[in-house]
Amino acid sequence: MTQPLRLGIAGLGTVGVGVVKIVRQKADLLSARVGREVQITAVSARSRDKDRGVSLSGYAWEDDAVALARRDDVDVFVELMGGSEGAAREATEAALAAGKHVVTANKALLAHHGQSLAVLAEDNKAQLRFEAAVAGGIPVIKALSEGLAGNEIKQIVGVMNGTCNYILTRMENAGLTYDEAFAEADGLGYLEADPELDVGGIDAGHKLSILAAIAFGTQVNFDAVELEGIGCVAIEDIRHAADMGYKIKLLGVSRMTGRGLEQRMAPCLVPASSPLGQLEGGTNMVVIDGDQVGQIVLRGAGAGEGPTASAVMGDILDIARGIDLPVFGQPANELKKANGTQGATPAPYYLRMRLLDKPGALAKIATALGEAGISIHRMRQYDHDGETAPVLIVTHKCTRSDLKTALGAMEATGVMVGDPVALRIEEV
Amino acid sequence: MTQPLRLGIAGLGTVGVGVVKIVRQKADLLSARVGREVQITAVSARSRDKDRGVSLSGYAWEDDAVALARRDDVDVFVELMGGSEGAAREATEAALAAGKHVVTANKALLAHHGQSLAVLAEDNKAQLRFEAAVAGGIPVIKALSEGLAGNEIKQIVGVMNGTCNYILTRMENAGLTYDEAFAEADGLGYLEADPELDVGGIDAGHKLSILAAIAFGTQVNFDAVELEGIGCVAIEDIRHAADMGYKIKLLGVSRMTGRGLEQRMAPCLVPASSPLGQLEGGTNMVVIDGDQVGQIVLRGAGAGEGPTASAVMGDILDIARGIDLPVFGQPANELKKANGTQGATPAPYYLRMRLLDKPGALAKIATALGEAGISIHRMRQYDHDGETAPVLIVTHKCTRSDLKTALGAMEATGVMVGDPVALRIEEV
Repeated sequence: MTQPLRLGIAGLGTVGVGVVKIVRQKADLLSARVGREVQITAVSARSRDKDRGVSLSGYAWEDDAVALARRDDVDVFVELMGGSEGAAREATEAALAAGKHVVTANKALLAHHGQSLAVLAEDNKAQLRFEAAVAGGIPVIKALSEGLAGNEIKQIVGVMNGTCNYILTRMENAGLTYDEAFAEADGLGYLEADPELDVGGIDAGHKLSILAAIAFGTQVNFDAVELEGIGCVAIEDIRHAADMGYKIKLLGVSRMTGRGLEQRMAPCLVPASSPLGQLEGGTNMVVIDGDQVGQIVLRGAGAGEGPTASAVMGDILDIARGIDLPVFGQPANELKKANGTQGATPAPYYLRMRLLDKPGALAKIATALGEAGISIHRMRQYDHDGETAPVLIVTHKCTRSDLKTALGAMEATGVMVGDPVALRIEEV
Repeated sequence: MTQPLRLGIAGLGTVGVGVVKIVRQKADLLSARVGREVQITAVSARSRDKDRGVSLSGYAWEDDAVALARRDDVDVFVELMGGSEGAAREATEAALAAGKHVVTANKALLAHHGQSLAVLAEDNKAQLRFEAAVAGGIPVIKALSEGLAGNEIKQIVGVMNGTCNYILTRMENAGLTYDEAFAEADGLGYLEADPELDVGGIDAGHKLSILAAIAFGTQVNFDAVELEGIGCVAIEDIRHAADMGYKIKLLGVSRMTGRGLEQRMAPCLVPASSPLGQLEGGTNMVVIDGDQVGQIVLRGAGAGEGPTASAVMGDILDIARGIDLPVFGQPANELKKANGTQGATPAPYYLRMRLLDKPGALAKIATALGEAGISIHRMRQYDHDGETAPVLIVTHKCTRSDLKTALGAMEATGVMVGDPVALRIEEV
């Protein structure tokens, strides 16, 4: 049996504690699987005295994560602090610069600095692994970069933020308003300290940008992700969508197109009978389309102690087994830069608006759409409430930029009350 | 860049041709991903002259797969002939004995000789990989042995034979009888040359036994798989199941229990709303329960040129990248022997029978069940057809052996006409 693999763990929140527990409680199973011992030599966290429900005896303590990352008795620096800057970034860079492997669950760090970290890792012959950063316990990065490596990836689609899916599912199943469902998720502790990371689609956008880099051999480009949160989705939208056989999901979509790399994270209508449409609650799902394999669907818990620790352990055990891969599946210096598509990929849209209940109102809206080159697939006007009438329109395929033009012209007609809701329809 | 990886491919049917196409058409993508060239140096098949729609120029030809396996210019022997004995086995053994890696899609070979082949491979420091043998394009072996290696696996459940799922789905959706759906599947070329391999559950049982070995660290033990085919399922069963909120699937289940290793492949009732219940047509699904990760669901095409070739390529590319793992995820000489559970794991059962339409018939059946210690959860009698009346019973949990006793006693009452149908209910 070869030398033990020695871990230094920075960050002892839920996930960090989960990793400590597995290493302590499953020593025999793990060493049977990887042929060597996996040990923790040192840990670091904000507070040394907090009771975390797990013994830290036998581990050296470092107040400073950077010092932990540089310790001679640490082979793998396990970064579970979070945040794209500050200690997480500094310590990760210090570890890689010292030629130590890094395993992290930090999607923000990878989304913002993935390329420079990958170059640093590969220059120092260190591994940088982050299975836990995307879709929690689902081994999607492994599936994409290894299992499906014989495929040209056509498309990645997924629900990658359990909190948003929980809110949308509660609106649908319990008839809650967005605000009620949000408050419920908050009460359950599902929301990030800054809730906009969840409901604004940012967290899920981070994940999508990481997957896109692996899938398409491009440098991570989070800034090019078209982001839209779920705050615009009302209970009526969920009901109308259901009437038409759809559900509303915060959906990530990435494809390589002739116009550039499409990366969108936005609430979309998906067929109710599709695997994505059937996904309820806090579960995540990633659907990968490969030119050979066709469609592969992966589903599992997207967060929580056990699932995230499982993904962190998967990376640690790969390193223990000597599995050595480029950070994004190809050498970082060969990854191409990819521009975004700037909304140029056409799709059908669902539009909901309120129109003044007077003659010619609907005609003006239809004209505005027509003049922007958008044709109408379905239109439905509901009973007016005295002053305004709700109108639903499903368009044929159009680009986001044509739609923007049309929405401007609709606004200018003066017959629309309030802002319209525009949701893309994805037949996935 | 290191030396090219040189493949020798034995078997040029659908999958073999698929692999040749990928290697020829994707050379740049593959070498970007693995950092070296992947080449084919030699091939072998039954007929040299057949037009396979792909050029074999530049490849040496061997009539004999064993000779191919031993060639000095072959690093990886790709076995795509099939069959648990004969040329496939001999050539695989020859390759491993010569220290060459083997990639195969052959589930029968692994189910029958997995243990001895794993020992041979590890003794000769050769890799033996078989992602394509289980669930086609789904990277389930990789997920189980690598991505989820930090988990104690609790249970594996899956639909792993697309042909059976196609037949059952057609019965359900088109109202076909079993014989009609079977004939349709046959006409579409979905059935193996010996259809019993499919509809008898043998092929799916092979796959289950391979997954169980990896999941539970045991030696492959196909002989201990309790096998039952789908031939007993009638259209009435599918309808009754639907009335109760279930669908019928040929389901593989494996768990490590206090009584031994449970491995069953049999038609079962599963909740219609579960991921397995929603699975239609030829698609496969594997559901893995890990103690940390919870439930992971993997879904994709279970057969066909592209999906199977994708899985074969995944293994080849792992080898090209230098990924080196024990054959079943742990060294073969450390795998435990595991006995079967001999039907001792309790579950609720669905029973359908026809009873003579005379006083006391139902009471006799109920008594037979009660005397075997089986209590009844639901019972329903339908209109009689003049002579007999269909009766449905859902039992509380009981063991297969108690059920067998009860079925014998029911038979002995003389009020039952024909054989009853008994299907296990799995709440997965």
